[in-house]
Amino acid sequence: MKQPAITKATLGRLPIYLQYIKSSVQSETVSATTISKALGLGEVQVRKDLNLICEEGKPKIGYQTERLVSDLEKALGVHNKVPAVIVGAGKLGLALQGYDGFLEYGLEILASFDSDSEKRNMQYSGKTIFPMEQFTHYCQMHDVHIGILTVPAASAQSVCDKMVQSGITAIWNFAPCTLKVPENVIVQQENLALSLAHLNLLANHKL
Amino acid sequence: MKQPAITKATLGRLPIYLQYIKSSVQSETVSATTISKALGLGEVQVRKDLNLICEEGKPKIGYQTERLVSDLEKALGVHNKVPAVIVGAGKLGLALQGYDGFLEYGLEILASFDSDSEKRNMQYSGKTIFPMEQFTHYCQMHDVHIGILTVPAASAQSVCDKMVQSGITAIWNFAPCTLKVPENVIVQQENLALSLAHLNLLANHKL
Repeated sequence: MKQPAITKATLGRLPIYLQYIKSSVQSETVSATTISKALGLGEVQVRKDLNLICEEGKPKIGYQTERLVSDLEKALGVHNKVPAVIVGAGKLGLALQGYDGFLEYGLEILASFDSDSEKRNMQYSGKTIFPMEQFTHYCQMHDVHIGILTVPAASAQSVCDKMVQSGITAIWNFAPCTLKVPENVIVQQENLALSLAHLNLLANHKL
Repeated sequence: MKQPAITKATLGRLPIYLQYIKSSVQSETVSATTISKALGLGEVQVRKDLNLICEEGKPKIGYQTERLVSDLEKALGVHNKVPAVIVGAGKLGLALQGYDGFLEYGLEILASFDSDSEKRNMQYSGKTIFPMEQFTHYCQMHDVHIGILTVPAASAQSVCDKMVQSGITAIWNFAPCTLKVPENVIVQQENLALSLAHLNLLANHKL
């Protein structure tokens, strides 16, 4: 039987389900009702999403927690090892380079790149900071398609262009600006300020 | 007329609407249809959310973009100036200390704290790194209720306890662990690995 296609919206929610279940569900089974209430999502939506990636939950019982985690991880590809590189070895870039949580999700940061010649070939967290001149060659040699952009906004577009020319098709952008990319390239904008604003908002409303 | 209460789920989506409209909408008006398609949310949900914080959109025209941004900002409290502090002046903590995007959302990082005596009273981005002993007093003097936790997982719970004792009621947790807090304290868990996993997933599905 052909699986129905997973939409972008569903895909976007899978990591949220996984994070919630791994961090907050201790029981052997978990129902769509519980998940939907905890995450503020519609119950029908949760059920639809989950049934795309695993066996249907049983009435009044729900899903086997362990099996559901495993199915979510499989759908998310967390057992693969996908390489990524960082451009911009400033505080944030190096913080990400030293962050070891990525491996858990099948992602490996191989190295970082920086235009500052003083950082040339320095090591951080056992990974090298290469000069930008080596970027294209490195990405091609290591088959890298994911780039993490942590340079200031002023140089973000030129770094983005360089990434695209070097075969990067997915960019995680921490620079506070919009990037212009060809249609086949995906940009995920990270806005740390928004996350804190959201927290403040929740605190003010004491929900 | 009494406004219906804004639910947690709606509040959670407001920053997403604001970010999308500010970064991607150039036209004078924007419809709930456009927003819902761009964000992968249900159209009815978008309309419901927005109608809680601004005047209803006009049929076939939608919302005045400028007005909608202003109403979203008001609902989010971005024109206030709310103080926050960081505990853990490592790479990530200092990256956040130097990140100037918070002010745009009415949040100001005043200082950071670290148990490392070598960092005592050092300056970064014009802000001081204070020793942990001064944490409680500082939070009380500056009426700080938001804490950003960027210490390793092993010391996260003890730092969290210290925060709670010092009057912090909202914690933005970057440590990869769950925190135990009293009921009146909100924790927002940040998982950077999940964001990258999400990007990888989207790239693989070329949506």
